[in-house]
Amino acid sequence: MITWNNLDTLASYKKLFEVEKVNLAEAMSGENGAERVRKYSVPMAEGLAYNFAAKQVDDKVLDGLKELAEEAQLTEKFEALYNGEVINTGEKRLVLHHLTRGQLGNTVEADGVDKRAFYVEQQRKIAEFAQKVHKGEITNGAGEKFTTVVQIGIGGSDLGPRAMYLALENWAKKNNAFKMEARFISNVDPDDAAAVLYGIDVAHSIFILVSKSGTTLETLTNESFVKDALSREGLDPSKHMIAVTSETSPLAKSDDYLAAFFMDDYIGGRYSSTSAVGGAVLSLAFGPEVFSQFLEGAAAEDKTALNEDVLENPAMLDALIGVYERNVLKYPSTAVLPYSQALSRFPAHLQQLDMESNGKSVNRFGQPVDYVTGPLIFGEPGTNGQHSFYQLLHQGTDIVPLQFIGFRHNQMDTDVVIQESTSQQKLCANVAAQIMAFACGKADENLNKNFEGGRPSSIIIGDQVNPRSLGALLAHFENKVMFQGFLWNLNSFDQEGVQLGKVLAKRVLAHETDGALKVYSDLLNI
Amino acid sequence: MITWNNLDTLASYKKLFEVEKVNLAEAMSGENGAERVRKYSVPMAEGLAYNFAAKQVDDKVLDGLKELAEEAQLTEKFEALYNGEVINTGEKRLVLHHLTRGQLGNTVEADGVDKRAFYVEQQRKIAEFAQKVHKGEITNGAGEKFTTVVQIGIGGSDLGPRAMYLALENWAKKNNAFKMEARFISNVDPDDAAAVLYGIDVAHSIFILVSKSGTTLETLTNESFVKDALSREGLDPSKHMIAVTSETSPLAKSDDYLAAFFMDDYIGGRYSSTSAVGGAVLSLAFGPEVFSQFLEGAAAEDKTALNEDVLENPAMLDALIGVYERNVLKYPSTAVLPYSQALSRFPAHLQQLDMESNGKSVNRFGQPVDYVTGPLIFGEPGTNGQHSFYQLLHQGTDIVPLQFIGFRHNQMDTDVVIQESTSQQKLCANVAAQIMAFACGKADENLNKNFEGGRPSSIIIGDQVNPRSLGALLAHFENKVMFQGFLWNLNSFDQEGVQLGKVLAKRVLAHETDGALKVYSDLLNI
Repeated sequence: MITWNNLDTLASYKKLFEVEKVNLAEAMSGENGAERVRKYSVPMAEGLAYNFAAKQVDDKVLDGLKELAEEAQLTEKFEALYNGEVINTGEKRLVLHHLTRGQLGNTVEADGVDKRAFYVEQQRKIAEFAQKVHKGEITNGAGEKFTTVVQIGIGGSDLGPRAMYLALENWAKKNNAFKMEARFISNVDPDDAAAVLYGIDVAHSIFILVSKSGTTLETLTNESFVKDALSREGLDPSKHMIAVTSETSPLAKSDDYLAAFFMDDYIGGRYSSTSAVGGAVLSLAFGPEVFSQFLEGAAAEDKTALNEDVLENPAMLDALIGVYERNVLKYPSTAVLPYSQALSRFPAHLQQLDMESNGKSVNRFGQPVDYVTGPLIFGEPGTNGQHSFYQLLHQGTDIVPLQFIGFRHNQMDTDVVIQESTSQQKLCANVAAQIMAFACGKADENLNKNFEGGRPSSIIIGDQVNPRSLGALLAHFENKVMFQGFLWNLNSFDQEGVQLGKVLAKRVLAHETDGALKVYSDLLNI
Repeated sequence: MITWNNLDTLASYKKLFEVEKVNLAEAMSGENGAERVRKYSVPMAEGLAYNFAAKQVDDKVLDGLKELAEEAQLTEKFEALYNGEVINTGEKRLVLHHLTRGQLGNTVEADGVDKRAFYVEQQRKIAEFAQKVHKGEITNGAGEKFTTVVQIGIGGSDLGPRAMYLALENWAKKNNAFKMEARFISNVDPDDAAAVLYGIDVAHSIFILVSKSGTTLETLTNESFVKDALSREGLDPSKHMIAVTSETSPLAKSDDYLAAFFMDDYIGGRYSSTSAVGGAVLSLAFGPEVFSQFLEGAAAEDKTALNEDVLENPAMLDALIGVYERNVLKYPSTAVLPYSQALSRFPAHLQQLDMESNGKSVNRFGQPVDYVTGPLIFGEPGTNGQHSFYQLLHQGTDIVPLQFIGFRHNQMDTDVVIQESTSQQKLCANVAAQIMAFACGKADENLNKNFEGGRPSSIIIGDQVNPRSLGALLAHFENKVMFQGFLWNLNSFDQEGVQLGKVLAKRVLAHETDGALKVYSDLLNI
């Protein structure tokens, strides 16, 4: 029997405040530190590992977190989710993104169909379509092959797929899997669409319109923008566009599209990279086989999230440590720092995933909570960030917990030896060095050069960014955010906080405003 | 006589805590709110205006901030800076980035020369060089025109110039000012350089090596990477490379470069967009006239920072409100939200500018301070962010102050009317709506749909992102960060916090580690 309780009603949570805090600088020094790095590591799928040695925890804290996981029934709640309970209480919906990559539990039926079968069927249709495009069986009006795919979507229809595309673009080029260049149009700023259209060969481009409801303002506006551009070049828009939408949307059966692939209400935008939303663009760009490998990596990682033992469940442990940092240690933000240029936009995707899921002040029953919830998430790839905001991370007045990601090998397999090391070795040496600099610091008489240390971090270490490891990485963070939502007793799957702005913007455009909003509108010439 | 005191020793600072806090939701409602939007606006240069109506201030708070500005001697300290005092106490250096765009005070001599004349001379040399490249008087080895310029640099040699390039790329294309495409290589991850080289026509590319000391690890490594690639194609690297460096660096007089342009120790990387660091790449990409306009915009904005009246000094007011939010209201972060796709990387630049300048725990004399300093800075362009992390900004448990930027006109002048409004109008309607949604919220019986409001923001409103307004915008934030450094009594112009990581990384590469660092190194296969 699952009970959904606020975090601060749990005895194990209250106990956590009594556990002695870890002195990280001390813990990570000497042989004790070495032993922590060896021991405090949880295997993930696809050769990844979550190493939390440099987090502000020890066996006592971990015992407390284990108790918390049990009392909060994290395993049982995940089980309820993947078996099809209505976990999205606000919108009264199931939460089924795991089903896009595997069947973790019982068959889940909704809308009269087996949902796993539904998602697989969409993947099959997309694969078939993509292969026809690649073979030149589906072409533009002049019978010529498409060379570019452009995704039109915003939020979850943009950030996740874009981050995944960028993560695999160079891997695909190196591994003969690169089929078509992908571009993305998201912003309602007309310069976004104009710039993308300026930079591509429109006549050989296929556009994917992604909108679940078929009503997203930005996306429909950009679709019109694109259709105008196609028409101006004497091209038939319906020969250049496909739709990813819900079966009930006005786009689903329209002749305006070469094809339509379906998503549904059980997968939120920010969880949709493994659905048709990511599937169409990634299958076109890299081929359906690559997309399948990506799903397999995610599926394998989902299985690690089933482990009841916290120390064998990397997402659950990551979630618990994050809540400990946020609620017990009172750190208000977290930086995500991948040491991989391929993951340049992965932090932007996690920013949405995390902040839109858990940036909430009411619990899943709509009652206010008395504790802080989702932290602020930001990040840039290393080593770039080292030459930017790391100054504050090392010597600023606030402590910011860090989530590093590093890989032993790069993607392009081109490297150069300078001063007896490769660039890849330099990259890895830097992330190792940073973890220790943050954890242990270094005393200096000149306080301007003094490093206090005590700044916690974890690192996910993998072999290489490839479709499988990327899928695993994505699933890890999705599951981490889910477990944190369970801990905070939130509904992580709605986003009511985005509604008011939309309503007011419509009022501005209809010139139905007064007071301050009217003056702002005038200042902006609307 | 200037005295440098810690913020918490100032009587006016202590008084600020006694001033009644503003109820923002109330203040921004009705006709009172409209009046605030009309009144709480400070003109900037180039037609921009800083509107702070939706900040948590009123006339009483503003009086307190005025007193603080006077007691902290902000005007006098700025005067000392631009007249050439050693403001960078840690490194014992002058701080002269303002001189790259104008002479605000006395002639400043250093290294035996008039520094304004020195910077102007570099601009002249760069302009001459760029014009010769554009005219085809300087060519590749085969006598063909260069078509692409690639900047090799990291941190301040990357983020600022890159953000400025992206901000003006489409404006230049629209206004016949586009000369060459620019690309950027920064990360020591070898996939960064490999991917850029893969995507360009190397034989027609000119590379700018940017390193003040000539010793930055990432930059020298990437230079070798590029030289290897040039050599492999049978090209002579010295015919494809220029350097931006200090006159005393080993690069300054090397035959390895077609030309060398100079910077010096008085301009930190993050303040170098208006120096030769930004000048070379922007002059090559858009022509020296465009770079001149950019400098003129910055110079004009610098002049507004001289105003002793806080209400006529946008950077000073912005700085004061920021400190009020950080230290009195206790908000730990600030989001920068430009409603302009052109400014997509402007927040990443400000992240470095702000966090590297003021993310410090010791004052300018090396003594610990007892108050919080620089906030965490992050941001993405709107409307994209609305579909991502705005959920937390609206309904999360922490309040995040916001800095909006909006423009009446887009850059490309291509637009589409959908539902009786253009995309540009929709973009502007959204930013206006967001300000009001954050400030006033909206009550709802269903607390999941309830918006508390009381979330402060400012907006800089301009006509269009163009070279002049961009220069003004950049200077505004540079000056804001400078004034905040004065208030916190920090040295905003060094970055000792980046050193320890470098030292440890070298040790890893030399295999001179033990303990935890050795185990991490092994895990990462170094």
